[in-house]
Amino acid sequence: MPSRPDADDPRLGDLSEGEILRAILARTAQASHTLIGPGDDAAVVAAPSGSVVATTDTLVHGPDFRLAWSSGFDLGWKAAAVNLADVAAMGARPTALLVALAVPRDLRLSFVQRLADGFREACAALAPGCAVVGGDLTVSDVLTVAVTALGDLEGRAPITRSGARPGDTVAVAGELGHAAQGLQLLFGRFRDGETPVPVDVAVLGDGDRAALDAQLRPSPPIGLGPMAATAGATAMMDVSDGLALDARRMAAASGVTIRLSAAALGDDPVRALAGGEDHALLAAFPGAVLPPGFRRIGEVADRSDHDLLVDGDPVDVSGWDPYRDWDSASG
Amino acid sequence: MPSRPDADDPRLGDLSEGEILRAILARTAQASHTLIGPGDDAAVVAAPSGSVVATTDTLVHGPDFRLAWSSGFDLGWKAAAVNLADVAAMGARPTALLVALAVPRDLRLSFVQRLADGFREACAALAPGCAVVGGDLTVSDVLTVAVTALGDLEGRAPITRSGARPGDTVAVAGELGHAAQGLQLLFGRFRDGETPVPVDVAVLGDGDRAALDAQLRPSPPIGLGPMAATAGATAMMDVSDGLALDARRMAAASGVTIRLSAAALGDDPVRALAGGEDHALLAAFPGAVLPPGFRRIGEVADRSDHDLLVDGDPVDVSGWDPYRDWDSASG
Repeated sequence: MPSRPDADDPRLGDLSEGEILRAILARTAQASHTLIGPGDDAAVVAAPSGSVVATTDTLVHGPDFRLAWSSGFDLGWKAAAVNLADVAAMGARPTALLVALAVPRDLRLSFVQRLADGFREACAALAPGCAVVGGDLTVSDVLTVAVTALGDLEGRAPITRSGARPGDTVAVAGELGHAAQGLQLLFGRFRDGETPVPVDVAVLGDGDRAALDAQLRPSPPIGLGPMAATAGATAMMDVSDGLALDARRMAAASGVTIRLSAAALGDDPVRALAGGEDHALLAAFPGAVLPPGFRRIGEVADRSDHDLLVDGDPVDVSGWDPYRDWDSASG
Repeated sequence: MPSRPDADDPRLGDLSEGEILRAILARTAQASHTLIGPGDDAAVVAAPSGSVVATTDTLVHGPDFRLAWSSGFDLGWKAAAVNLADVAAMGARPTALLVALAVPRDLRLSFVQRLADGFREACAALAPGCAVVGGDLTVSDVLTVAVTALGDLEGRAPITRSGARPGDTVAVAGELGHAAQGLQLLFGRFRDGETPVPVDVAVLGDGDRAALDAQLRPSPPIGLGPMAATAGATAMMDVSDGLALDARRMAAASGVTIRLSAAALGDDPVRALAGGEDHALLAAFPGAVLPPGFRRIGEVADRSDHDLLVDGDPVDVSGWDPYRDWDSASG
């Protein structure tokens, strides 16, 4: 973030709140289920089911992203995607996003414009019909993007994490461990000592590039959430903190033991179990027939001494912890 | 925020996310319209009208509050109140809050417990039936409280800021300028040079104490929003940035001129016009009969050269700008 004045790309601190909001809103407008959009005290969003699914998730510079690695577009895309995934995990269709931005004065207008582009394009690609319907802008030394996503159940019952029953098939849709692989690449190859340095994708092969995309611009299978609900899923959640930790949570909430097969977890089962931020959908289905997009990774068993068994053994893979690696002194 | 270890009141950085969330959620549970509350990927909230009103507003340490002046309880209360006011300003009844907290590691558990108390008590006092239904916790060097409020229109049409018509009566419910008076007190009497010092209410008279409360724990007339809608309000908004600026916004959105009477603005009309953060409800009503709780302050006229006239003259009172007084170096 250069601090030299640049008339073509002003610092946010040199603009009024209204000027910044107009620049952002011009980019987030898109067809949606909004009855009243940005510009009033609140938005009004259609909730035809008579209920609304609501979730909030925040990205903070440092623990959740680094500006050396994430463009404004990446950041907007990821902030949208992680929230859309939580709506999808209830079996709902995302209808609207609200975006609360806390921005440093030195940040450039072009950055938040690209952030708005990221929100718009993530909605268009992952959850058509969903749009940014409102937001808030304030100033902070720490760039913070707090997003709330709303969704509609379209008449279905919500799918919680507590409904898995012994005999159910355990399945996932989406990637496992790719986002963690991407983060490993960033920490291994795109920093100078403790300092993050910009990413040069030209030096990466296809696999590494896909892993980097999974970390910086994840594409969770949002549309498969409602499909899983229609197919009769008994429990569902998004895998944000690693499969091991999240499968344990589902097992504990459901009062069952989940038994996974390592062979079903790809070529790096440990990374698949431990790596967070993929936002795959983890679901339990009665019987063996799965909806398209889901693959079997295990089964639900009666409650035993452990929440989770992999190939019959308990696992000790700690989950994703946003506190773990963050040191404000080193960035 | 002392940094000495204290077993009875641990630092958040020494606790797991789950431990912190359990301590908070034990305090925010209350009767509400929630179908599925905290603990799953998303909450599900009743939206019997078939639409949902949604708004988001963030409080950042520095521009929006100072820890020397605001207790955890104050901060939770205010963060709830300002969001509830935006829902009420649409004519809706608040149904749910989502709270995204970004907290410094050094913050004490007792602080976020009192923050949770503030959210619960503000809902109970200002919007019975509304409750915290979900949230997010992350770590940041800057304490940030991003809140989303949801509401239900109970079958009424939403009241926007663009419906005021020539001949309407302009009215307000709630205080004007009190929160600004409270802020003036804090800057005048509760700091040592540039450094905020703790508030000693014992040295204040009743009027000053009320002004301080208006700043630190505002009590906007949330219930009057739905009542105004039922009474036929043509336009409504909450006065967050000062009456002058917000009345101008209503006039511009409605394509009219708003004419106010200084005599109707209390004993300090300039402060009433300029002071922000009271979250009074500003509304236009057809005819002269006002619902209980609203008082006449002016009228809507055909569009002229100015958005706003006070006693027939244009006013140049700048509104509330959260960027204005914040300097991260001096706090």
